[in-house]
Amino acid sequence: MSLIVQKFGGTSVANTERIFNVADIVTKTYEKGNDVVVVVSAQGDTTDEFIEKANEINPNASKREMDMLLSAGEQISASLLAMAIEKLGFPVVSLLGWQAGFSTSSTYGSARIKRVTPDRIRKEIDKKNIVIVTGFQGVNKYDDMTTLGRGGSDTSAVAIAAVMHADLCQIFTDVEGVFTADPRKVPKARKLDVISYDEMLELATLGAQVLNNRSVEMAKKYNIELEVLSSLTRVPGTIVKEESKMEKMLISGIAKDNDVARISIIGVPDKPGLAFRIFSKLAAKKVNVDVILQSVGRDSTKDISFTVPQSMMQDAIHVCNSFVEVNGAMHVVYDENVSKVSIVGAGMETHPGVAATMFESLFDADINIQMISTSEIKISVLIARDDADKAVTAIHNKFFGED
Amino acid sequence: MSLIVQKFGGTSVANTERIFNVADIVTKTYEKGNDVVVVVSAQGDTTDEFIEKANEINPNASKREMDMLLSAGEQISASLLAMAIEKLGFPVVSLLGWQAGFSTSSTYGSARIKRVTPDRIRKEIDKKNIVIVTGFQGVNKYDDMTTLGRGGSDTSAVAIAAVMHADLCQIFTDVEGVFTADPRKVPKARKLDVISYDEMLELATLGAQVLNNRSVEMAKKYNIELEVLSSLTRVPGTIVKEESKMEKMLISGIAKDNDVARISIIGVPDKPGLAFRIFSKLAAKKVNVDVILQSVGRDSTKDISFTVPQSMMQDAIHVCNSFVEVNGAMHVVYDENVSKVSIVGAGMETHPGVAATMFESLFDADINIQMISTSEIKISVLIARDDADKAVTAIHNKFFGED
Repeated sequence: MSLIVQKFGGTSVANTERIFNVADIVTKTYEKGNDVVVVVSAQGDTTDEFIEKANEINPNASKREMDMLLSAGEQISASLLAMAIEKLGFPVVSLLGWQAGFSTSSTYGSARIKRVTPDRIRKEIDKKNIVIVTGFQGVNKYDDMTTLGRGGSDTSAVAIAAVMHADLCQIFTDVEGVFTADPRKVPKARKLDVISYDEMLELATLGAQVLNNRSVEMAKKYNIELEVLSSLTRVPGTIVKEESKMEKMLISGIAKDNDVARISIIGVPDKPGLAFRIFSKLAAKKVNVDVILQSVGRDSTKDISFTVPQSMMQDAIHVCNSFVEVNGAMHVVYDENVSKVSIVGAGMETHPGVAATMFESLFDADINIQMISTSEIKISVLIARDDADKAVTAIHNKFFGED
Repeated sequence: MSLIVQKFGGTSVANTERIFNVADIVTKTYEKGNDVVVVVSAQGDTTDEFIEKANEINPNASKREMDMLLSAGEQISASLLAMAIEKLGFPVVSLLGWQAGFSTSSTYGSARIKRVTPDRIRKEIDKKNIVIVTGFQGVNKYDDMTTLGRGGSDTSAVAIAAVMHADLCQIFTDVEGVFTADPRKVPKARKLDVISYDEMLELATLGAQVLNNRSVEMAKKYNIELEVLSSLTRVPGTIVKEESKMEKMLISGIAKDNDVARISIIGVPDKPGLAFRIFSKLAAKKVNVDVILQSVGRDSTKDISFTVPQSMMQDAIHVCNSFVEVNGAMHVVYDENVSKVSIVGAGMETHPGVAATMFESLFDADINIQMISTSEIKISVLIARDDADKAVTAIHNKFFGED
């Protein structure tokens, strides 16, 4: 007998038909003799509807009251799912975040889980109940409702799996698993049977929005086996687990990120400490800098380039312009029409030819590389936005073969 | 400086405009230097929508899960009202039943308040916050959400007023107060400035659905002064308070109740214990018997008549038919087309002519009285349904005068 945690997102419980579909999945798992803890998000557009209602009243409402409002969303979906499971004739109980023992930090709107005390969940499991827990929420030290922010329900599920030593944590979503590339863009993209935590983390960071990063980090830390799968097709999904348990794949996925802008400061005097000065000023303005590239100097100057999320570009340019004035660099150039395309694979650590193969595929497709950045298991290139889809297809064909 | 509890029903917070109207009432009360605790119901049709959603999934859903679902309703209205008050620039905090210290019995769907521990409310008031509390809900000893059943928010408000020794508990509703008769039926009906708890209780029982009975009982027990008033017209309402503080009115109101059916067992043998046998069997079937009348016997038999709510008529007839078979009475007759019309007034205790005046007004209007029942402060008559509105007007004219 195993303990299985199953998490269902908002689209999976969007209406009565979908709720019964979830009830069917849950009760079939229970019927096989498993203990089942279910984590649900709010139904479909509930959260958006709540936000709209709140904005109509007060666009600057406090985050405390927003959390009070939003946390009603999972309360509704959890109780409705419980009613569907009752209808199918199974013992079930729904629990709110605070009932399930979720203690969080006090930051309303993006609280972090500090502790899960699953006494009540255990008691209900001992009574042979299927236990439904509202995702995305908890209470802080003031006994106030908090929400975990984006992707919070994934994290709720993994946290329960971790603290209860679950055998498996299934994240049901609207895709069938983790693919080698975005299947809407690359028809030949393949579903992966298995992927490591680190690869999943790199892919998540790179914009393949299958799993929330915090949840993968937590799964890695507590060594919880995750399965990403669809609530609609009922086929096995992708297992996310510890690397040592699996054969390393050369590359496991290709991801594209359009939320990126490139900024370059041209003609920075070649003096020590200037790079530090720029990036500490950017950090002070809370600008997230991603890829950084410093050219080898021509004459006595050098060029410093970096990428930032699009929303932070104006702030970054402002910082750079001040820098140019004070430190006598030449000028600042920027480009919003860029994309970051990355390949991720634990196998590349031991296979030196991966980067070369990637660059070759881009060369063959006549795509110019603007910047390159590498980590142990990831290679990212910055290219023109217009080339991005072509690049993903070209790289995919190179590594995974054409049909 | 006073502590004022203000309760707003679902229609008072049905939409954004109404919510701001309530926010205006609350903040004006606060601006006068009062401490304010606000109790809200769920918005307009929210509860009905939730019930519909639940029925679509499982018409036999457990009451525990229904309470989990329904209690989200006040959570939504409370947080939205808080946001509106924030928008007006006032310090505010919304609290759920469990946060506000509402401990209830375990009966889901119609829990009773066992204890209110208002530590959190006090703390927030000390911080100069306007405190909004979700009505209608609490938690039971299992830490599960419970709802108080029909009219529960009134009871929540009075409970807070009682435990915090509030100076006044205002129940805002969609009528301007308590009237001498239903103003939709009797144009000359007058709003009462003041009414006693006992009179209010009799009127509530008799179908003048202004205040929930449980809340009036609680207000009486803890001697909390209530004011029933409209959230829309902003004029003084009706004060409900202890009788000794007020001049006794001869009669304070006339009420009509259509939810009544009359059943008679004809020809019951005149033996001791038979009446007891009928009514104990009815009680066992959970039939609420209201007015009971036993005729003085003709020959060696008598007739026993009583009234029941319409929904219990079939059950009652079934019990009576069995009784007739076993005990050899003649037969059972019943009438659904009846109404109970009652007058209530603390003054009638000391004014013997009240009943006679009432009967005279009915005689003048050519209305036949089928049954009569009296208590210290109430006289009820059972008449044909078709005569009911005419009867209310006739009695009203007699006691309150024609224009």
